[in-house]
Amino acid sequence: MLGLMQDWPLTVDKILDHAKNWHGDTEIVTRSVEGPIVRTTYAEAHSRAKRMSNALQALGVTPGDRVATLAWNTARHLEAWYAIMGMGAVCHTLNPRLHPEQLCYIIGHAADKLVLTDLTFASLLLAHRDKMPSVERFIVFTDEAHMPAAGDPRVLCYETLIGEQPDRFAWGGFDENTAAGLCYTSGTTGNPKGVLYSHRSNFLHTLTTLSGDLLGIGARDVVLPIVPMFHANAWGVSFSAPAAGAKLVMPGAKLDGASVHELLETEGVTFSAAVPTVWQMLLQHLRQSGERLATLKRVVIGGSAAPEALVRAFQDDYGVEVIHAWGMTETSPLGAEAMPTAKTLALDPQGQFRERMKQGRAPLTVEMRITDEAARPLPHDGKTSGHLKVKGPFVARAYYGAEDQGILDGDGFFDTGDVATIDAFGFMQITDRAKDVIKSGGEWISSIEIENLAMCHPKAELAAVIGVRHPKWDERPILLVKLKAAETATRQDFLDFLEGRIARWWLPDDVVFLSDIPLGPTGKVDKKVLRERMKDYVLPSTASKG
Amino acid sequence: MLGLMQDWPLTVDKILDHAKNWHGDTEIVTRSVEGPIVRTTYAEAHSRAKRMSNALQALGVTPGDRVATLAWNTARHLEAWYAIMGMGAVCHTLNPRLHPEQLCYIIGHAADKLVLTDLTFASLLLAHRDKMPSVERFIVFTDEAHMPAAGDPRVLCYETLIGEQPDRFAWGGFDENTAAGLCYTSGTTGNPKGVLYSHRSNFLHTLTTLSGDLLGIGARDVVLPIVPMFHANAWGVSFSAPAAGAKLVMPGAKLDGASVHELLETEGVTFSAAVPTVWQMLLQHLRQSGERLATLKRVVIGGSAAPEALVRAFQDDYGVEVIHAWGMTETSPLGAEAMPTAKTLALDPQGQFRERMKQGRAPLTVEMRITDEAARPLPHDGKTSGHLKVKGPFVARAYYGAEDQGILDGDGFFDTGDVATIDAFGFMQITDRAKDVIKSGGEWISSIEIENLAMCHPKAELAAVIGVRHPKWDERPILLVKLKAAETATRQDFLDFLEGRIARWWLPDDVVFLSDIPLGPTGKVDKKVLRERMKDYVLPSTASKG
Repeated sequence: MLGLMQDWPLTVDKILDHAKNWHGDTEIVTRSVEGPIVRTTYAEAHSRAKRMSNALQALGVTPGDRVATLAWNTARHLEAWYAIMGMGAVCHTLNPRLHPEQLCYIIGHAADKLVLTDLTFASLLLAHRDKMPSVERFIVFTDEAHMPAAGDPRVLCYETLIGEQPDRFAWGGFDENTAAGLCYTSGTTGNPKGVLYSHRSNFLHTLTTLSGDLLGIGARDVVLPIVPMFHANAWGVSFSAPAAGAKLVMPGAKLDGASVHELLETEGVTFSAAVPTVWQMLLQHLRQSGERLATLKRVVIGGSAAPEALVRAFQDDYGVEVIHAWGMTETSPLGAEAMPTAKTLALDPQGQFRERMKQGRAPLTVEMRITDEAARPLPHDGKTSGHLKVKGPFVARAYYGAEDQGILDGDGFFDTGDVATIDAFGFMQITDRAKDVIKSGGEWISSIEIENLAMCHPKAELAAVIGVRHPKWDERPILLVKLKAAETATRQDFLDFLEGRIARWWLPDDVVFLSDIPLGPTGKVDKKVLRERMKDYVLPSTASKG
Repeated sequence: MLGLMQDWPLTVDKILDHAKNWHGDTEIVTRSVEGPIVRTTYAEAHSRAKRMSNALQALGVTPGDRVATLAWNTARHLEAWYAIMGMGAVCHTLNPRLHPEQLCYIIGHAADKLVLTDLTFASLLLAHRDKMPSVERFIVFTDEAHMPAAGDPRVLCYETLIGEQPDRFAWGGFDENTAAGLCYTSGTTGNPKGVLYSHRSNFLHTLTTLSGDLLGIGARDVVLPIVPMFHANAWGVSFSAPAAGAKLVMPGAKLDGASVHELLETEGVTFSAAVPTVWQMLLQHLRQSGERLATLKRVVIGGSAAPEALVRAFQDDYGVEVIHAWGMTETSPLGAEAMPTAKTLALDPQGQFRERMKQGRAPLTVEMRITDEAARPLPHDGKTSGHLKVKGPFVARAYYGAEDQGILDGDGFFDTGDVATIDAFGFMQITDRAKDVIKSGGEWISSIEIENLAMCHPKAELAAVIGVRHPKWDERPILLVKLKAAETATRQDFLDFLEGRIARWWLPDDVVFLSDIPLGPTGKVDKKVLRERMKDYVLPSTASKG
């Protein structure tokens, strides 16, 4: 027997409708790519998004078509998202940090019909337009006055386009499982793979992240998503802020400490979200300038593990609550958040902090487990590490263009590629990427744990640990260090620093100093490149025997 | 094109699974109907619920069957809910405050196969069992030692039943639109009507209420749902508390001020939800005893408008944040909550309080409007009042057994039967029930507004306003007052009190003192009975002319 409740498909156009109807005059403030800070409202953004849907339709876009965006976090980018998704087309966010070759590959793989771009990337795109045969037009997020000199009829101006259109357009009305967004993972192996979000998955992700124990933003908040919209949907903030009726502050292209700080203070930001690197830059700016954070209450850090010193500085020196979160493109992305529970709050300060530094616990809509190689669930003892797997309504079940290749295990779980522990409080901690874990004498050594410790050394700017072949132990860890400017250090300095802080057999066999450690497109250390660079390296212990 | 995200049906069994997996040792504390305070955990409740599913199956319950409960808020009642819903049967909550005749009607209309009852109601039920032909068995929520003397093989003991069963049972696996719960509205006109909730509607209601701007409870909270599980699902707390991993405190049968206060203090309750009457009793207890509220942070008040004095007392004297909420059985029930926004927080203290006292604003999943008689939307100006209508995934589209009788308007909206205004901040205020509104000279007078003011008179215990026929004005309001014990007052006392606080033409034409004002089964003034009692009443102005 079925219930007798209303059929109300979970489509994301309803999110901007809600913002318009109930928070219509709430502001969206943008540091525009052209320079000035510009202001609009949810009502205005709604009207402009409707105009854009009409413009897209006039350009021949039909439901299911892929429309790409290569853009910073701005109100225009937000409008375009809703314009595309609302009409049933697929919004494909491109990561500008990718190599042009990869961008062309992804655009071709998705067969994007249009590319919407910021001025920043227009010349790059236009230089490669011949390698994007599917793309019929490029639309530049600007007005006529700022349009790049062109003459190419394929290059259109966003403001001119929407200026010509009416602001009535029937959004939604389709199956809630309709595709809404497409985002390629910057996989470190093989070609990038596309995650095809549905309206339902985005909507359920939004409801989940609004909960008090996740982002928990409300109509009192002023939200600054620094994490880019092209980076796993800005962790859903482009949906959750209008859903909550929060004022939205968009940082545009300037993510340096001073620019971010200016927006935080002048707009009264209460909540923000970014990767550790950005917080690190802000912290440096604060320390150098002696400035404070007057309104910021809570920040979410994700993307990679935050250094302990960073979290302590925000908490203790600036009175900002730092929440660690974990997720990935395949999980929409929020999969866990380290919000304290009654039980972790009953721990001593050190214990509380230890739990806060973990990646966090799963919300209702994420089933999570760690398993052994045979997919058997492992205990939540905080010690046993296993393959981290997740299941839920906003977790991918296949990649775009590879629908027939199942990526779920026999129980329907997606293998994240991470290795993790889960403790008795339910807090998950990533100990490594499965491919980075160092297998020494049949046991696992967490490269991440050693890296995080090494990063606490006052002279380290960046640290990475990789495994190298060892005749007896199979693999042994070595520590790669990039020192801060004008610093000097020895191998022994770092080994002494680690000694006593980790198990003896985890101590790296060597420390190698590098002038540079390569980062991938999402700002994480690119271990594939590092391993390639170190391929001729021989361990001292092995070499002496050679 | 459809997205490529996982198919994960939104069924409520996943809520208790989540609580077991991630908050297994979090407590459920119950003031048992037998007397003592008893403790269990989510893990134990999960195990017992699974046993109960097996017991129900053994008794012949199959998916779609209706299983009724007539019970207080206890851990056993909670277990039974999940046992029934998890197996795909329908949990039909009965309101013990209904007249036995009505109970028999409802049980017959739902064709309940089993009735699960607390000891409190066992004798009442058994006395009427011949009028419940569909009911095959009665299960008493107790152990053998407390079972009523029976000998009737149709009367079973809950603890004995589940003691015999294994704790493995496959829950879920069905369509998320499957019926999960049934609750009859205690309609003031006609026979009660059944709202048939689905798993999907309950699940989406749960996600919605977890948001920071609604109940916002998390794993830090200790939650005491005083609002009964038979009263529109305890406003969803039976789902949201386990979903959030909050400790749950169940008050059982004792809702008096002293009993509630004892639980609040001994269990460290941080969040509670109840109708105004209960808060009134608690406040009286606190004032008489001089006791404090050490841990309570936030209470939600709904069911009917809270008197201003009550809200002020909790806020100012006890430091508890009071949140006004609105909803009804047909809306699962939460439809709006008066959580402040950045804009209302920018008002002066009086303005802030005025907004707090309204019924609140709609969350993302509730579309809300006020309309005129022709279903045309009316402006959000805080003055224009119209028919309050709602639409959304947890709003009813038909009543049980009357699937073919549409109850939605042409735009798919459900008419709540309330008359309301919506202001520029998006805050809705109920000004009356459509059937109680007084039509005087072509304009509407809000009976509720006058009642709320009259309730502020220090001598009033209860006040009600009804319309009576008037030859010239069509209807005129009269005020009915029940005085506090040992108080005396005159007609003029109350008219003087109202004078200047409402428009002159809203002033009641008369004040009638009653020794008692009848309440309906959900604790609201029963105006149908009042009107019947006052049917021979003639207005003084009219009488003088007669």
